[in-house]
Amino acid sequence: MANTTGIEGKIFGSETLKKDFASMVKEGVIMDVTNAEQAKIAEKSGAVAVMALERVPADIRSEGGVARMANIKKVAEILKTVTIPVMAKCRIGHYSEAKILENLGIYMIDESEVLTMADPYFHVDKKKFAIPFVCGAREFGEAVRRIFEGAAMIRTKGEAGTGDVIEAVRHMHMINEGIAQLKKFDDGILMKIATNYTNKYCKLIQEDYEKFGINRAIEDDDVVFSDYTYGNIKREILKILNEIKELQRLPVVNFAAGGIATPADAALMMTMGCDGVFVGSGIFKSDDPEKRAKAIVEATSHFNEPEILKEVAKNLGEGMKGIEASKVTQALQERGI
Amino acid sequence: MANTTGIEGKIFGSETLKKDFASMVKEGVIMDVTNAEQAKIAEKSGAVAVMALERVPADIRSEGGVARMANIKKVAEILKTVTIPVMAKCRIGHYSEAKILENLGIYMIDESEVLTMADPYFHVDKKKFAIPFVCGAREFGEAVRRIFEGAAMIRTKGEAGTGDVIEAVRHMHMINEGIAQLKKFDDGILMKIATNYTNKYCKLIQEDYEKFGINRAIEDDDVVFSDYTYGNIKREILKILNEIKELQRLPVVNFAAGGIATPADAALMMTMGCDGVFVGSGIFKSDDPEKRAKAIVEATSHFNEPEILKEVAKNLGEGMKGIEASKVTQALQERGI
Repeated sequence: MANTTGIEGKIFGSETLKKDFASMVKEGVIMDVTNAEQAKIAEKSGAVAVMALERVPADIRSEGGVARMANIKKVAEILKTVTIPVMAKCRIGHYSEAKILENLGIYMIDESEVLTMADPYFHVDKKKFAIPFVCGAREFGEAVRRIFEGAAMIRTKGEAGTGDVIEAVRHMHMINEGIAQLKKFDDGILMKIATNYTNKYCKLIQEDYEKFGINRAIEDDDVVFSDYTYGNIKREILKILNEIKELQRLPVVNFAAGGIATPADAALMMTMGCDGVFVGSGIFKSDDPEKRAKAIVEATSHFNEPEILKEVAKNLGEGMKGIEASKVTQALQERGI
Repeated sequence: MANTTGIEGKIFGSETLKKDFASMVKEGVIMDVTNAEQAKIAEKSGAVAVMALERVPADIRSEGGVARMANIKKVAEILKTVTIPVMAKCRIGHYSEAKILENLGIYMIDESEVLTMADPYFHVDKKKFAIPFVCGAREFGEAVRRIFEGAAMIRTKGEAGTGDVIEAVRHMHMINEGIAQLKKFDDGILMKIATNYTNKYCKLIQEDYEKFGINRAIEDDDVVFSDYTYGNIKREILKILNEIKELQRLPVVNFAAGGIATPADAALMMTMGCDGVFVGSGIFKSDDPEKRAKAIVEATSHFNEPEILKEVAKNLGEGMKGIEASKVTQALQERGI
């Protein structure tokens, strides 16, 4: 069983504390920023937190190359500039990038598919950390696997850097439906689902074993992920499924992300049951970032008040031009499922 | 059952009122405009309404990027300029864009495939709104599904931004044939059709469930669309089919749209049984928009009087150059079926 208490003396550390910490940003907007100046604009506009990045997803997409954890000097600079919480991204499965970011004293780590993947099979064992993590999910099973690994917060993957909201909407439907259908399922079906989700941990690595001529059957007491055995993963996942069935929501906060570009987009995601919104390229790739940032913050808190939404939508400059999600040459959402 | 009364104190609101409101533009021409100046020309030329847009479909097609609801400031400006009704487009399934437009006090919303889709599975639940909606359809089943969702008006999808009428003609044939054949069908066959159309609501989302390993049978009391269960959708659709069989026309006004570029095109669509015409790129992408706008209005009301059509067709400048519908790289009509 993984150590779930982590480093002593930190204000967060236990799973409950990490979740509480994540929920402090609830109903807020978290904005991607690439420098201290942008971070100030985000803070002034009412962001609940900023995500420190070297390049926004739209630029990562257009420039290509390997996308890694941001320059630590830059993250530290942003940390010094604003009083709101600072988050940063590490590559999927990159334990050491995560350890560096944790040590830097940021608020939360986004283990993100927007960066190039570091491990083809496994995510970071987030229970080994005192700092809370957020992870992306396209569908219910992914959300459950990330929660099992210790994610304190989930977000839709959407299709980052496009300015097209359709994939975030798709992912929210998939997550909502996964939650809803648990109601009808008895213990037998829940166990089958837990088995399916656990098998996902073995599938990719098994395919590679086979490619190299190793025929590898995974048994119940075989260690599969971090120091978890196959049997332990299944039991933990079953517990999570039962909790979700009971709560009828994820046991962590669930944000929208990936393609949100307008106040109306933010409001739409909130009406679908999201707890808050990440905006990446949508703000600093628009005509007037400060105005747009404020408008998206307003729309997120007043998502159900069309009178306010209308006022907010007025006097905005042009949004980011974007690219239709169906036309992207690389679907970032397919990383780290 | 969805709330069909909507916001109190509006002049429209009930399904009947919404349909009456939609029918006030009958036998008229509704023109795409991108600014107040164009809106004035449209009004002067006898348009029954204008559609406020940021870019006409031909430009959306050639420029690419994500096409969203128009800038609210621009729509408000057009609203102030003309006395004829103003309509505007929202993305398919974008509830929050629709709520903003409703609150702005426009006449009708076009939930349009010309914009990038916001929801891969579902349209807006239009019965939740007091404002009437128009939706596109390529064939009879699409028209029925949109009417079930609360559309107060249907239009052919055609192939927007091409200036090629062939797809609008195809779609009108498909709708007419769907209506005609109902005459021959007994209750058993009507029920089968209702089941087919209802299954369409499940098909796309089920394909995604399966992709993620969820084998999901939709049962009668499962909520599928908005707060409608599978069983409720089927019953409502059966009612609409019976109404159409009885009326031998759609129970809402049915306009032509998508590729209409000349007075003759408008007249052709009217002879096929359309109740009126939308003209998008056809007017302001032509040589002499005002002359062409007037000519299309004349041709629409006198579609069956060749003498007048001949006079109207004289002295027009060049039409929009257009692109053959069979050669477009993206068929907008395939969105949101």
